[in-house]
Amino acid sequence: MLSDAVKTRLREIVGPANFLDSLEDRISYSYDATLYQAMPEVAVYPEHAEQIAAILRLANEAGFAVTPRGAGTGLSGGSIAARGGVVLVLTRMNHLLEINTDDLFAVAEPGVITADLAAAVAKHGLLYPPDPASQAVSTLGGNVAENAGGLRGLKYGVTRNYILALDVVTPTGDLLHTGSVTVKCATGYDLTQLIVGSEGTLGVATKIWCKLVPLPEHKETLRAVFSDMDAAARSVAAIIRAGVIPATLEFLDHVTINAIEDFKRIGLPREAEAILLIETDGQRDAARAEAAKVMEILRENHAQSVQTAANDAERAQLWAARRAALSSLTRVRPTTILEDATVPRSRIPDMVRGVRDIGRRHNLIIGNFGHAGDGNLHPTILTDARDVEEFARAEKAIEEIFQLALSLGGTLSGEHGIGMAKAHFLKNEIGAAGLALMRAIKHAFDPNNVLNPGKMMLDANGE
Amino acid sequence: MLSDAVKTRLREIVGPANFLDSLEDRISYSYDATLYQAMPEVAVYPEHAEQIAAILRLANEAGFAVTPRGAGTGLSGGSIAARGGVVLVLTRMNHLLEINTDDLFAVAEPGVITADLAAAVAKHGLLYPPDPASQAVSTLGGNVAENAGGLRGLKYGVTRNYILALDVVTPTGDLLHTGSVTVKCATGYDLTQLIVGSEGTLGVATKIWCKLVPLPEHKETLRAVFSDMDAAARSVAAIIRAGVIPATLEFLDHVTINAIEDFKRIGLPREAEAILLIETDGQRDAARAEAAKVMEILRENHAQSVQTAANDAERAQLWAARRAALSSLTRVRPTTILEDATVPRSRIPDMVRGVRDIGRRHNLIIGNFGHAGDGNLHPTILTDARDVEEFARAEKAIEEIFQLALSLGGTLSGEHGIGMAKAHFLKNEIGAAGLALMRAIKHAFDPNNVLNPGKMMLDANGE
Repeated sequence: MLSDAVKTRLREIVGPANFLDSLEDRISYSYDATLYQAMPEVAVYPEHAEQIAAILRLANEAGFAVTPRGAGTGLSGGSIAARGGVVLVLTRMNHLLEINTDDLFAVAEPGVITADLAAAVAKHGLLYPPDPASQAVSTLGGNVAENAGGLRGLKYGVTRNYILALDVVTPTGDLLHTGSVTVKCATGYDLTQLIVGSEGTLGVATKIWCKLVPLPEHKETLRAVFSDMDAAARSVAAIIRAGVIPATLEFLDHVTINAIEDFKRIGLPREAEAILLIETDGQRDAARAEAAKVMEILRENHAQSVQTAANDAERAQLWAARRAALSSLTRVRPTTILEDATVPRSRIPDMVRGVRDIGRRHNLIIGNFGHAGDGNLHPTILTDARDVEEFARAEKAIEEIFQLALSLGGTLSGEHGIGMAKAHFLKNEIGAAGLALMRAIKHAFDPNNVLNPGKMMLDANGE
Repeated sequence: MLSDAVKTRLREIVGPANFLDSLEDRISYSYDATLYQAMPEVAVYPEHAEQIAAILRLANEAGFAVTPRGAGTGLSGGSIAARGGVVLVLTRMNHLLEINTDDLFAVAEPGVITADLAAAVAKHGLLYPPDPASQAVSTLGGNVAENAGGLRGLKYGVTRNYILALDVVTPTGDLLHTGSVTVKCATGYDLTQLIVGSEGTLGVATKIWCKLVPLPEHKETLRAVFSDMDAAARSVAAIIRAGVIPATLEFLDHVTINAIEDFKRIGLPREAEAILLIETDGQRDAARAEAAKVMEILRENHAQSVQTAANDAERAQLWAARRAALSSLTRVRPTTILEDATVPRSRIPDMVRGVRDIGRRHNLIIGNFGHAGDGNLHPTILTDARDVEEFARAEKAIEEIFQLALSLGGTLSGEHGIGMAKAHFLKNEIGAAGLALMRAIKHAFDPNNVLNPGKMMLDANGE
């Protein structure tokens, strides 16, 4: 429990307008986009790095937990105040500080909304590629903490690949600058990449230097329907083998297609086993040539139908199904568990079949959709958390999905992170040596374990 | 000093054919491509990870230093046995284990030569982009340790960007697997990226998973001569602003041009102030369209002449000057000091002018060439290490070049690393907090400081 003296000091540090401790406010900051919930005692809105440093120094003195938070759209419990204490809400540090069109980078505070950054740089003919599905509301700081992915992973990479440098407040309240805006940097350990994806456990980013690339001049969009899942998978493999790396290569399975039809009636064939949504981009002729090659491959692999978009309106129509996937699935049952166990692209058919078997065995509805190009599918379990027996089956199914992904050479998380959701399984992937090194790094940064405790690694005693 | 018992044990671990301790052998492994030299007591050639683990466990017990080494082409002293002990020569672990054309990765042991990897994957229509100048002899393991760069940094990135996963022997002799071959991975701290570029201080990579990309179908090559350095710099800026990211964008200065003419007589105009060598690549029409745009920009910026290559023979001619740059400069004086302090691309004119001033002030010949596209130039000081007075001026000049790069928003090292050469300057860039965290990480991995000690960070006592 925070003492009154600590609360008073916190209020002084951020100012009364940036300090909240009413029950309503604490409830508002007690959840994210998972099913986890934990009540913080206080929520504060820092406005600059020095305030965060003062809060963290106080946390080390007084011994309370500090959990950084952006928009709370995370899907692994990263921003849940697992050990109570203080939630550090970074949404008021939301200034886009610089767009450098010569050296191709932008500088932003952590509370900048991802889509706002992308829109601002697009006005200069530049692209910030990471596009997590939550981009319209999620913050850049949250994306950095979770190493957020998105639909462009295959061709463009993920958040990690676009973070050049950081200003960071360390867990002990020191100010740290990492990395360099230079394209190349071979100076010291890569602390930038260590902090990206550390889920707010190693530091709080207060200023973020993002790499930008030229906005592709042109896009081509194709949507293909398959009556056979393996034919869809063969098409994906053939596209890559032909040397085409699409900007987007998305997949919807039979369950997802029917959920979309149930709720949106956009005219998808209900008997279809798979839909692929493919976009090539770049210089106009190149994007067109690649799209033509993709079309040829889709036909060779017996796509039932292929539609292309002649303009932005038609493009939006082709995207409608993919955009509606998650929201349609969530309507099927009261509780949605969105997974992101990820496999090498070539193992997607095995993964899709395996997930289907798991669903059948546990008598659960599992939809499957996501990023076929990078092996990052989203098996989505449709269940009801209030039905104790069914939910236990769902939890068993999740565990089997993790094991399946690892057995196929994959990873527990493609883009959502470990957080609270997968901490119990981390050792299965990274082994005892990896876990010991992660704990040693955490201890080196945060000897009193004040910053976002209870995430990623279980404590040595398994809690 | 290693005891006879320790030497006997080392000989047993690797076998007599993989154990060397004659004076000649020790001298052979006492240097790299810098001016540093230090004698190891023993050189061993491990053949698999378990041998390396046994050696490191012994090092922790008996208290001796172990310095990993590939081909010894490093330019910062990374593979010098600064504290004596054992040199771990990885050149016999040189098997290319897998080329996966579906999931676009290769798996190699650390002793595989970089160019051999590139050639092997090219046969499958794939590209391993990192191309350090030493690639014909340097090893992949050394490239990983030093985060080697090369000529394609601007468009394709550096070694770091192509390492997906690693098998690592930790400094305490544990076996660790990091990362994932999946395109996306948000599982735990990024230990892969922490080990890449750690200059062999955090672990010995024994198996390396490298990301591959489709080999570009076509290349266009242009060489432009300028009588004005600023016109060359303006061209570079205009190319990027036009949305063209060339695969290669190299620069030669007046001193370098004349050194090349002195030794190679390939017909470069001696009065020229700058030469740019530019390559666009990709789908045929796209690469051509980009080259046409580059040509237009070069003309607008008053290039004195622009040559293009119609075929591979002509391409080789255009490349001849760039290829001859370093070897020509090294012939001017007995001692060559090759620097790699790097600045944001837009600050290259300031950097080139600043380096010229430093040369003038200290009465030194400094050639300048390198990777204009990514701000990674190579100021090359031509001197004589036997002339104590002149060499002291050279050392002062190097220090001023570092300060200049940092003052222009740059970094101490673009691609050579810190090693022994820049350890004294590291704190100037990363600050006290950064250095303290690096030391804490090193201690967490290597509590007895046995793996490549005396590199990157000075010890807390400044040694």
